[in-house]
Amino acid sequence: MRLLVIGGDAAGMTAASHVHRARPDIDVVVLERSPYTSYSMCGIPAYVGGELDRAADLVVRWPEELREAGIDVRTGTEALAVDAEAQTVEVRDVATGAATREEYDFLLIATGAHPRTPDLPGLQAHAQVVHTLDEGEALRTRLDAAGDEVHRVVVVGAGYIGLELSEALVRRGLDTVLVDRAPQVMPTLDRSMAAIVEDRLRTFGVDVHLGEALVEVREDEQGCCREVVTDAGVYPAQTVVLALGADPNTAVAESAGCRLGDTGAVAVDSRLRTSVPGVWAAGDVVESLHLVTGGGANVQLGTHANKQGKIAGIDIAAHPDSGDAEFPGLIGTAITKVCDWEIGRTGVSDAQAEAAGLDTESVTIQGTAKAGYLPDAGEVHVLLRAERGTGRVVGAQLVGTGNVGKRIDVAASWIHTNVTVQDAQLLDLAYAPPFGGVWDLLQVAARKLTKQLGLSPQL
Amino acid sequence: MRLLVIGGDAAGMTAASHVHRARPDIDVVVLERSPYTSYSMCGIPAYVGGELDRAADLVVRWPEELREAGIDVRTGTEALAVDAEAQTVEVRDVATGAATREEYDFLLIATGAHPRTPDLPGLQAHAQVVHTLDEGEALRTRLDAAGDEVHRVVVVGAGYIGLELSEALVRRGLDTVLVDRAPQVMPTLDRSMAAIVEDRLRTFGVDVHLGEALVEVREDEQGCCREVVTDAGVYPAQTVVLALGADPNTAVAESAGCRLGDTGAVAVDSRLRTSVPGVWAAGDVVESLHLVTGGGANVQLGTHANKQGKIAGIDIAAHPDSGDAEFPGLIGTAITKVCDWEIGRTGVSDAQAEAAGLDTESVTIQGTAKAGYLPDAGEVHVLLRAERGTGRVVGAQLVGTGNVGKRIDVAASWIHTNVTVQDAQLLDLAYAPPFGGVWDLLQVAARKLTKQLGLSPQL
Repeated sequence: MRLLVIGGDAAGMTAASHVHRARPDIDVVVLERSPYTSYSMCGIPAYVGGELDRAADLVVRWPEELREAGIDVRTGTEALAVDAEAQTVEVRDVATGAATREEYDFLLIATGAHPRTPDLPGLQAHAQVVHTLDEGEALRTRLDAAGDEVHRVVVVGAGYIGLELSEALVRRGLDTVLVDRAPQVMPTLDRSMAAIVEDRLRTFGVDVHLGEALVEVREDEQGCCREVVTDAGVYPAQTVVLALGADPNTAVAESAGCRLGDTGAVAVDSRLRTSVPGVWAAGDVVESLHLVTGGGANVQLGTHANKQGKIAGIDIAAHPDSGDAEFPGLIGTAITKVCDWEIGRTGVSDAQAEAAGLDTESVTIQGTAKAGYLPDAGEVHVLLRAERGTGRVVGAQLVGTGNVGKRIDVAASWIHTNVTVQDAQLLDLAYAPPFGGVWDLLQVAARKLTKQLGLSPQL
Repeated sequence: MRLLVIGGDAAGMTAASHVHRARPDIDVVVLERSPYTSYSMCGIPAYVGGELDRAADLVVRWPEELREAGIDVRTGTEALAVDAEAQTVEVRDVATGAATREEYDFLLIATGAHPRTPDLPGLQAHAQVVHTLDEGEALRTRLDAAGDEVHRVVVVGAGYIGLELSEALVRRGLDTVLVDRAPQVMPTLDRSMAAIVEDRLRTFGVDVHLGEALVEVREDEQGCCREVVTDAGVYPAQTVVLALGADPNTAVAESAGCRLGDTGAVAVDSRLRTSVPGVWAAGDVVESLHLVTGGGANVQLGTHANKQGKIAGIDIAAHPDSGDAEFPGLIGTAITKVCDWEIGRTGVSDAQAEAAGLDTESVTIQGTAKAGYLPDAGEVHVLLRAERGTGRVVGAQLVGTGNVGKRIDVAASWIHTNVTVQDAQLLDLAYAPPFGGVWDLLQVAARKLTKQLGLSPQL
């Protein structure tokens, strides 16, 4: 019996490792296009910014280690198409172009996502995407080579990666312009919270231009990148970084006949089975259930990829029985640290709530990360959103200078367990002066929202 | 109509303010023994250590402000006894000793707790308790006066306050010995977690002596404090600080005929009513329901005092109807920062679980507060406890150098909502490299515990 895994990062390698351990009778073969397996994609900005010296530090497990452990990992190997009838995959060696065909009994598609690169003049030639570790290395090499010369960079796209890269570039001493077509940074935040982040970016030294659409990248006579043109300005730049998000790599799954979901990602059940028998999919390429909206969501994060890879592995290893683990869905929890500020969010934003037809209301409050009387009590902003009528918490956002980011997990836990703002007021949460005021900030927000929603009791 | 409040800190002033706002027809009189109202007791160690310059910074609202707002606050006024039949309280002016009698329609007893001072030779004369703001001022004045002279201090009692004070004293450059009769610091932690804290205290410079009972404090010929004698050693000391915990001040409540609970604190219902009609009690003086053990608990923390004061105020203001707010109970969440390490705990420890007859099991794991490949990724230790059979989370403890303390609220929320370790594995919690690994540490612990308990699914 043979399991073929397409994609050797979080989802793919987690599944491969589990099946290899649980079912020694199954041969596990992993096809990976890049030279790397199992690395921290989220750590790339830290490497580009110089916080880390070696890209290798981001690798969790090397292909050689995995091969020694008995998993047949083939890097530099791209899967092109699946013949689900014949249970074979058409494979190409990236270096030589040589094509072969691999057979499988079980197939896991963990092909991830590919960065969006709009078809605009000069973009293919000059814009650098930073989606994989080798792309991160390419950008860093380029910046290192520029040395102390004046170097201007334009980052296009103000999502998580765009913001983290902008910070990393400013830390390197580079003139950094951040451009986005949207009127706010971080589209998964409410506008008011995004404005706080935007303000912080400017203070840190990022030249932020919102509501401007990219038009072209112009080169000089030597064919080098010269400037970035938007519909509102021209920005000199020797380097252009694209961070416009990524779309699931569904081509392989589609060739297998797998059904896609509404988001365009691969549809799977709670055990990560696709619509094609014998074919599973996990990670950035799949559509998951959003537990707040009840709709589909394609959220490209390592947390889901790891869980889903494991659950797919458990189901494959249990075959022909069903695995006992199921992916319950997600609620859109995410976190980042930008310019020394922490930003956490979970559940639905105003836009997401509206799109899902949820009748919600929100409050924002400002507080401090320590008791106000202590020195260096950092500024914290909290947004809490609940459903009208029931008071059920459906969203939260945290932005602050203090160590508050992971407190978003408190609100995430509330959302998972249907805690209402009324009940949230009365939970036994921790207090000591180095951590805030006697009323936890999420509880202060819950009190205010309870009042605003006209619910009781109002503490 | 008249509400008499005995005790003008968190519980008392919160209730007083609420009733004053909600029921302008009720005269609100607050009797407070000390010169202060509404101050942060938890901030006293920071003031003693010199992190804060003025004791006044800890005061949230001054008596004058409250009087101007229309609340009749009488500081330096002690309540001695209640005649519940006559609805009067016997009152003494602390300065003059003059006794009077105050009438009430509603009475709130928020008399707090008094520090334990065992009856041992030399203790009354030389040991300093630091329970109130004026006591904190007295200790700091004494230490400031000692100036640069070599000054040795013995702290007796290794609970939260004893640890925080020991740290504050070492920061002041004082030779600090910490003594406790118990075999571990912080009795609300499991032994293994307490050992990590103990180790940290020693590294920081606190000379820790556990399993030693205090015998006496000896003075020199001038009648000054000379040394502390335990059953195992003699420690030179010019100052002795007692931090042996505190017992609820039930005398006034007992004089009113209020029933006490099993813990010796005042028994109240969920609206903070005592057994005597017209008499409420809230804060450190009352017994609360422990939601994990199902038994009574006297937990002296500002978080409960504030909530209970508000709920009592709501009930009083609604009289003769019932207030719409109820105190659901507590789960023993607490947090502190000692020697730059953060320590959080919630639910039951091993000892508490055993005492309550709960059949539980726990795991401990060690991780880092950032992704391991980032510089300065602090050490974090997590203990998670769940009930055998069901897997319901019933306790958690966190000790670490990173910014992890308030993550205890995640586990606290799980306990409140009966989350099991099986389900905890699959929650959508936040991840980014500056905040840890791709699997949240509480989830890593949940996975390990699921396995250990033989539950499924095992991710």
